[in-house]
Amino acid sequence: MKLKVYADRMSQPSRAVIIFCKVNGIDFEEIKVDISKGQQYSPEFRDINPMRNVPAIVDGKFKLFESHAILIYLACAFPGVADHWWAMAYFKIPLSVKYLLNTVLAPVFGLPLNPEAAAEGEELLSSSLYKIESIWLKGNGRFLLGGNQPSIADLSLACEIMQLEVLDEKDRARLLGPHKKVQQWVENTRNATRPHFDEVHNILFRAKERIQKQRSAEADSVSGRKTLLSKI
Amino acid sequence: MKLKVYADRMSQPSRAVIIFCKVNGIDFEEIKVDISKGQQYSPEFRDINPMRNVPAIVDGKFKLFESHAILIYLACAFPGVADHWWAMAYFKIPLSVKYLLNTVLAPVFGLPLNPEAAAEGEELLSSSLYKIESIWLKGNGRFLLGGNQPSIADLSLACEIMQLEVLDEKDRARLLGPHKKVQQWVENTRNATRPHFDEVHNILFRAKERIQKQRSAEADSVSGRKTLLSKI
Repeated sequence: MKLKVYADRMSQPSRAVIIFCKVNGIDFEEIKVDISKGQQYSPEFRDINPMRNVPAIVDGKFKLFESHAILIYLACAFPGVADHWWAMAYFKIPLSVKYLLNTVLAPVFGLPLNPEAAAEGEELLSSSLYKIESIWLKGNGRFLLGGNQPSIADLSLACEIMQLEVLDEKDRARLLGPHKKVQQWVENTRNATRPHFDEVHNILFRAKERIQKQRSAEADSVSGRKTLLSKI
Repeated sequence: MKLKVYADRMSQPSRAVIIFCKVNGIDFEEIKVDISKGQQYSPEFRDINPMRNVPAIVDGKFKLFESHAILIYLACAFPGVADHWWAMAYFKIPLSVKYLLNTVLAPVFGLPLNPEAAAEGEELLSSSLYKIESIWLKGNGRFLLGGNQPSIADLSLACEIMQLEVLDEKDRARLLGPHKKVQQWVENTRNATRPHFDEVHNILFRAKERIQKQRSAEADSVSGRKTLLSKI
């Protein structure tokens, strides 16, 4: 029975699992669980993953959730996966969630923007980016821990950093700008996993376009109101 | 080459991995990394686990750290592991660390006790115990999700709850007392994995004895001072 991957490509851990399967030639069926429609709360999905989040997999009689756990399982269970993926199989560092939730994502979920939480999130994110650069990317290797081929941790973490793409260009430049090594490493990970990396991230680029259009429309409407006010 | 498990039995994720190996007949060599002596910071251990925490494993050319990741790897890589361990392979819920750190463990690390943080930790712990009981142990099953045999999550979580053994009896009764189902389920996990569960937890029981003796000595000394003061 073919591996089933329950995922929403809008979620970065979902993307990491899908890219991993594609890069390693793992035959799988992708089943979309649309988070924006709350499909993770359906009774069918509860039987797949009682934690009700994506990604989750079903491989024959095995069910598994949490992307790090899934990636380790896939690397272990599918003999075609190359050894270099194991060089760093588990790595977590607080990254973008808090910042993104309190900037771009709050309005999406109908939550108020919280500048204080956003500032805390930015501090955490910057400190993590600094750590990645100064500890995990020190030396001349192209990947984490000085490797020359990507590991599970490279893919996982690069997918998480890609989530920053939805930010306003100005904010993105402020956050990622000082970390040239991080930018280069995301690019290396992208190159090592292409064309799948770009294909799977397409949904994010489209979301970015939508958000940018919305921002321009809002800016126009504000400047329109200002012009109108100045004429009154 | 035999599997190497780098562990300190004083750490609950270390214990979960060791018990798992023993219960499943996995041939392994246990290498003690004494946290109380800071051995996780040695250059030798850095090469095993750059995150410098235990447990970590080396299996031939694979290095891996983080207990959940390790347990999934072991279940996958060793054919003798029974299927029931997969029923719930990944589960994390905030449990005892914050409470323990601000009650029993602070003096061990030379930190001041923080009653406010302890109260927050207790609230978190109680709410997690309530969730385990009302969601994950609902129904008549002996294990999480209604299973009749333990999964990786049962072992991991039961080992974490066992850490509460080092508490003062009064505190332990207050915290665990209202959760009879949780107590029964820890006992079920213990029975399903004996004699290894008890053998590996022995270090914790010995630590408990030491802490209790210390508490009695302190209480005696306080009451002695009070008697002396009342005589002055």
